[in-house]
Amino acid sequence: MHQRCALGLDYGTNSCRSLLIDLTTGEELGSSVFPYPSGQAGILLDPSQPHLARQNPQDYLDGLVAIITGAIAQALAENPGFDPASIIGIGIDTTGSTVIPVDQSGTPLGLLPEFSKNLAAMVWLWRDHTSHAEAAEITALAARIRPEHLAKCGGTYSSEWFWSKILHLKRTAPDVFHAAHSFVEHCDYLPAVLCGLTDPLTLPRGICAAGHKAMFNPAWGGLPDKDFLTQLDPALADLRDRLYNKAVSSDQPAGRLTGEWAAKLGLRPGIAVAVGAFDAHMGAVGAGIKEGTLVKILGTSTCDLMIHSNQQPLADIPGLCGIVDGSVLPGNHGLEAGQSAVGDIFLWFVNNLVPDSYGATPDAKFQAMEAALAPLLPGQTGLLALDWNNGNRTILTDTRLTGLILGQTLHTRAHEIYRALIEATAFGALTIINRLEEYGVPVLEVVNTGGLAVKNAALMQIYADVIGRPMKISRSDQTCALGAAIFGAISAGTVESGYDSVADAQRALCRLREKSYQPNPGNHARYARLYGLYRQLHDAFGTQQWSGRLSHVMKELLALREEVS
Amino acid sequence: MHQRCALGLDYGTNSCRSLLIDLTTGEELGSSVFPYPSGQAGILLDPSQPHLARQNPQDYLDGLVAIITGAIAQALAENPGFDPASIIGIGIDTTGSTVIPVDQSGTPLGLLPEFSKNLAAMVWLWRDHTSHAEAAEITALAARIRPEHLAKCGGTYSSEWFWSKILHLKRTAPDVFHAAHSFVEHCDYLPAVLCGLTDPLTLPRGICAAGHKAMFNPAWGGLPDKDFLTQLDPALADLRDRLYNKAVSSDQPAGRLTGEWAAKLGLRPGIAVAVGAFDAHMGAVGAGIKEGTLVKILGTSTCDLMIHSNQQPLADIPGLCGIVDGSVLPGNHGLEAGQSAVGDIFLWFVNNLVPDSYGATPDAKFQAMEAALAPLLPGQTGLLALDWNNGNRTILTDTRLTGLILGQTLHTRAHEIYRALIEATAFGALTIINRLEEYGVPVLEVVNTGGLAVKNAALMQIYADVIGRPMKISRSDQTCALGAAIFGAISAGTVESGYDSVADAQRALCRLREKSYQPNPGNHARYARLYGLYRQLHDAFGTQQWSGRLSHVMKELLALREEVS
Repeated sequence: MHQRCALGLDYGTNSCRSLLIDLTTGEELGSSVFPYPSGQAGILLDPSQPHLARQNPQDYLDGLVAIITGAIAQALAENPGFDPASIIGIGIDTTGSTVIPVDQSGTPLGLLPEFSKNLAAMVWLWRDHTSHAEAAEITALAARIRPEHLAKCGGTYSSEWFWSKILHLKRTAPDVFHAAHSFVEHCDYLPAVLCGLTDPLTLPRGICAAGHKAMFNPAWGGLPDKDFLTQLDPALADLRDRLYNKAVSSDQPAGRLTGEWAAKLGLRPGIAVAVGAFDAHMGAVGAGIKEGTLVKILGTSTCDLMIHSNQQPLADIPGLCGIVDGSVLPGNHGLEAGQSAVGDIFLWFVNNLVPDSYGATPDAKFQAMEAALAPLLPGQTGLLALDWNNGNRTILTDTRLTGLILGQTLHTRAHEIYRALIEATAFGALTIINRLEEYGVPVLEVVNTGGLAVKNAALMQIYADVIGRPMKISRSDQTCALGAAIFGAISAGTVESGYDSVADAQRALCRLREKSYQPNPGNHARYARLYGLYRQLHDAFGTQQWSGRLSHVMKELLALREEVS
Repeated sequence: MHQRCALGLDYGTNSCRSLLIDLTTGEELGSSVFPYPSGQAGILLDPSQPHLARQNPQDYLDGLVAIITGAIAQALAENPGFDPASIIGIGIDTTGSTVIPVDQSGTPLGLLPEFSKNLAAMVWLWRDHTSHAEAAEITALAARIRPEHLAKCGGTYSSEWFWSKILHLKRTAPDVFHAAHSFVEHCDYLPAVLCGLTDPLTLPRGICAAGHKAMFNPAWGGLPDKDFLTQLDPALADLRDRLYNKAVSSDQPAGRLTGEWAAKLGLRPGIAVAVGAFDAHMGAVGAGIKEGTLVKILGTSTCDLMIHSNQQPLADIPGLCGIVDGSVLPGNHGLEAGQSAVGDIFLWFVNNLVPDSYGATPDAKFQAMEAALAPLLPGQTGLLALDWNNGNRTILTDTRLTGLILGQTLHTRAHEIYRALIEATAFGALTIINRLEEYGVPVLEVVNTGGLAVKNAALMQIYADVIGRPMKISRSDQTCALGAAIFGAISAGTVESGYDSVADAQRALCRLREKSYQPNPGNHARYARLYGLYRQLHDAFGTQQWSGRLSHVMKELLALREEVS
């Protein structure tokens, strides 16, 4: 049997990377990274607008060539007999909602000379928050006249999402808005480029971006209706005709690689290019997501994904970021939740509040603190924190929340606060799991991936103890690119890929590390008490409904500290 | 007219110091400091009992000679014509409740060879907290059968106080308890020594220590009755006969300096030695306390003192540490309040949570943070804190409370948290003032003294803006010793001192610095909003009665931050 391979491309916030895998053995044959050269670490900023974050589309195109030829070169270096013609498909994931204004030929406006210095014409990166007023307006309008739209995205439309960004563009840079014939998500743009699909009105759109960020749902005829859009701005209703009315899942090919790109990349022309999706969604596939398995992608923030068969009933789940049929795996609802900041909270703490007695660099400080906090028992710090320094995505969907730490004495040390912050993120993670289970989505297994899952053993043990379930770790360091490669393979069809379905490929290619973290029953019991207190603070500060007393909180923390000390 | 002078001796936690003043001009002629040589910075510790803090009585005696001869030597060095015979009286203040077990000759047990290695026989320093269980027991018994005793000390009897310490000694070191014929406060011991008064049953006791720490009150016949003490321990009822049934204020002489001590110290024999009192109380006199004037002694913790004429009605004030007739000035009730930690919170923060980018030493970090926080407006940090890292003395009288900080984002800097901690202590100070005014004690003027008042201009401005009153600063750096010197003079009588009363001497000798801090009306208005939020957190976490909602807190902080930014 000939070698069959697939390429996964993972477009992150600061760089893109590739992974070339052998579809039979799962072996990772080659990989390459391309840091975006523009702006600050790939992000175009405006000092006068701190919430602005844009990207240069040229970086994406330059990255395509660099990471594909780089991965092939690495495979050849390790095995001179490697044949690039064995690559049967390409899958691509990107950040999102990362929105590109394009002209009639599908060309990003930012690539045109007349807009090359105009930040409004560039790519609007997911983390651009300039559109918060428009997001609030969309949320308010939908709550009034289209509550079913909101129910699928947790009750709040975000400033990071498609319509908020376009409406803000219309209002703040009308010239750019009028020059834009249409708008394309980053994850839809790159497959179209590779396949030579230039008409923005017909190029395939992925259900992942459409469903999670653009309020697209076949149940109400695709994108939001014109009456709704008109009330936001009549120009959006006109734009609706220049967007799309169909969106598909990533097991489908967007098209076939053009001869021109094949030559440039050293690939066979005509191989499949899968419909694109978001990084976390393909990452969940690469981590082996299946019914009952929660995949947690633990990084600066988290993305928590599950699937639920679309043949089974499923209620709207309050506070979830999104519920979209087919967004992760065909035939299943993709359920997306997340925490607005996890690693970012730890980075904030180490950069701003940890003295140099712990070490000279952030890494040294983290290591010293982890060594100091690992032997502590639950409750021993006497501290309790809320993990809201960047708001709360799930289950409160509220960006206007902030951090909280309580329990400090005159003897509290920095590593104890770091432990309390880790515990707070674990409590936040448990709150998401509880919400899923309350609405009929059982969490039978938790698979973790992302930097923190691999690097921070103390954190993973605390998560196991708080959540009361084993914390398993995905074996690949590149689950997003692995998931993309799987979609690249499946989009080439069963004959070429050798797999009947994404699930079939996952069983062969997605593995766990031998090391997992088991919950300690005694610690879990203590954390159950602490979680009760966390939940009271969570509800007291985070919900309008809560009313009650809090005078027991500090005293119970002191009592628990004395018990375990 | 001949020069008339007085000596004030101020016995602190780590050292004692003297001040020699000219009673006509107020000039400070000499001063001397003696760090206690025993233990760690004068404190005897036991690593196995972190709440234990004792002192060696020999340090007090060695200090007497050192600081009196030192002050005279300095006065002579600056003016060789100075005549030590011009010194007409000595006043002494000490920490408290600092309790000394003594034998029948008034000798501290710790000075006897058989007890020289026994920590239980040493002086029980004010900050010794080994007696917390006994304090809770005394509070519970008094609440049940003698509520009037508790009403005069804010509702809670403290582990720092006289009876808690003696009861703990009885239970944990009965041999020492039985060897003790009586117990003497540090502030009563030293005047007795200088005057050769050796019988512990007759040596003069000050009303300040007796009233504030030993539940002494003429209204119920002096010390607590034997029925009450018997229920704690019959041995305490027996002890009552070997204590005292009279206590006097510090304008009275305890006695006259003996020839032996006069020779040792280079003083005239027979000069007056005033009845002793606590440092903060004499400090309030040195700072010019009068009706309507709140004196705040701002250090690691604070002591807040007022007086109220004993000819006027005065209700019990819930949460005040003590209300004792004559404890500050004769003819007035002394009202004592305080915050359990102020400077200690800042020291904790700078030592544990401020990175070296602010500076290499704690002092450098404080300076850099103060420069960075001073230009900020109220609300600009978005933060709100509770000043409870060491519990809350007034108005909650609860040691089982801890710190809280909320409002953190991913951009919060250390100097912003430091500002929030300063503001929290200012809100705590305002809460004390409001409580006094609610119970009919108007605060017309605030005079500050102590290290923070002199050294931290940013803090004083924040206090003025939060409290909405000018913050005045006492001119002398040694208000405690100055107050003691005034009592030394007054105890010598009108003819010798030239003053009719303490108040008369204060008018001549106590001055303010030219620099005071004026409230900014705009800042005060913003702080009034922040104080409303502080008070909700204060009541929610600190009182059992509170019940309500808190979901507005983070949002109002964000809104205020946006308003002022």
